[in-house]
Amino acid sequence: MTVCIVGLGLMGGSFALSLKNSLKICTIIGYDLNKDHQFQAKNLNLVHHIAKDFDEVKKSDIIILAIPVEAIIKTLKLLEGIDSKTTIIDLGSTKEKISIQTPKSIKKNLILAHPMTGTEKVGPSAAFSTLYRDKIVVLCDLEHSGKHQQAQAIKIFEALSMKISYMKSKEHDSHAAFISHLPHAISFALANSVLKQEDPKSILALSAGGFRDMSRIAKSSPIMWSDIFRQNKTNILTSIEAFNKELTYLEKLIKDEEWEKMQKWMKNANLLHNIL
Amino acid sequence: MTVCIVGLGLMGGSFALSLKNSLKICTIIGYDLNKDHQFQAKNLNLVHHIAKDFDEVKKSDIIILAIPVEAIIKTLKLLEGIDSKTTIIDLGSTKEKISIQTPKSIKKNLILAHPMTGTEKVGPSAAFSTLYRDKIVVLCDLEHSGKHQQAQAIKIFEALSMKISYMKSKEHDSHAAFISHLPHAISFALANSVLKQEDPKSILALSAGGFRDMSRIAKSSPIMWSDIFRQNKTNILTSIEAFNKELTYLEKLIKDEEWEKMQKWMKNANLLHNIL
Repeated sequence: MTVCIVGLGLMGGSFALSLKNSLKICTIIGYDLNKDHQFQAKNLNLVHHIAKDFDEVKKSDIIILAIPVEAIIKTLKLLEGIDSKTTIIDLGSTKEKISIQTPKSIKKNLILAHPMTGTEKVGPSAAFSTLYRDKIVVLCDLEHSGKHQQAQAIKIFEALSMKISYMKSKEHDSHAAFISHLPHAISFALANSVLKQEDPKSILALSAGGFRDMSRIAKSSPIMWSDIFRQNKTNILTSIEAFNKELTYLEKLIKDEEWEKMQKWMKNANLLHNIL
Repeated sequence: MTVCIVGLGLMGGSFALSLKNSLKICTIIGYDLNKDHQFQAKNLNLVHHIAKDFDEVKKSDIIILAIPVEAIIKTLKLLEGIDSKTTIIDLGSTKEKISIQTPKSIKKNLILAHPMTGTEKVGPSAAFSTLYRDKIVVLCDLEHSGKHQQAQAIKIFEALSMKISYMKSKEHDSHAAFISHLPHAISFALANSVLKQEDPKSILALSAGGFRDMSRIAKSSPIMWSDIFRQNKTNILTSIEAFNKELTYLEKLIKDEEWEKMQKWMKNANLLHNIL
């Protein structure tokens, strides 16, 4: 069986490496428009070999799309006409727009997946074999995919030791806005607000765990994230609005010197303890 | 030499434990208004013994105030009349208000210190001996402290293997607002915005590293943090305003579908890479 990984950055590179280790009967092929990424992925032994052209990608049994979400939509159009037995798995962070824009003829080929994992690092050299282990992968609108494809996808994610969760793509996008996209929006804004101060170096010299943790994902890829914000526009605006409401409330409590109300509000935030 | 730690939570407990390990000639005494904390600190061997009353605290050579910042101001008033050789070190996260409100007669006794370290955990059981190791401690307005006290404080922080940084308390409070207080404000607001959604459990079930890192400090102590927000009111409001400006800009870019401008804005945030 051949598995072709399209996009050999952190997500695709780690996917390739994990599968190479766990599904030893498979041939893992790599594909990336960036020649430098192809070269690195081969050198780092992330894949068995690099596809010589897009035709070789199309002939693979399983195609993994580990590229920015706008590129996923474009690539799905190029995959029209593939064999009805081929399985395509996209790893995009948004799902509804991809689902809607997939050509009808390959709807059954496609598995909409979102692995809830990642780091702020980019490129093949950031790949590591345990990125997916014990993490959650959300499979969306699975009933629209073919039975064969469903079975293949479950085999792949089980090989990566992932926990599978099922959801409608609409519900996924609204949850992902809060749990993943909003934190990225906040982290980018926090980084920029400090960097624009008069003397950012002196401020950052004092940084401890709290700031480092919160600003880490502000180092994430601008292309990947502007794509996500584009595709999940409405949900992200809703989540930013909900967050703004809380921060504005805190601001008012500070201005009005309402320390007891503030403690009550913070105690509510502490309840996260009970769930996470 | 006797060192008395007032406040036996995460910060005080860890301070006691580290000093016990590194300055073996010292007797480490503990004091806490919370009897349960005293009992735990003794049981966990964080201190050699518990002070029988506040008079014993006052007779110590070095007094460490590891309590919320409003309590620091109250306690400093109770310390009026101590020996001129006694060293008081406060570990509060704000410095200017404490500096202003310290009784004149003990100004030389006091060292204004802010160790840039911590975790979201609370109480004596959260204490660990390496909390301070290799971390930065900011000493403020040091020229106002007595020569003897300066030497004692430097000895103590060197024993904890800390890196010492010097600053005016005014400058410290403005930097700390951005690097520490703003991230806490954001984290509390993020936690509350998710917890107030219709089905927070389903959302949180998907949480990965990014969200966990950003919400971790939302589990911090409400009393400690409302005190800090009270004492550093103006600087915190300034930092929230700077952050809001960035988030509002992002919101506008999303609404206007300005994806290229968004990438430019995110690339600027990526510059954090070069400093942190």
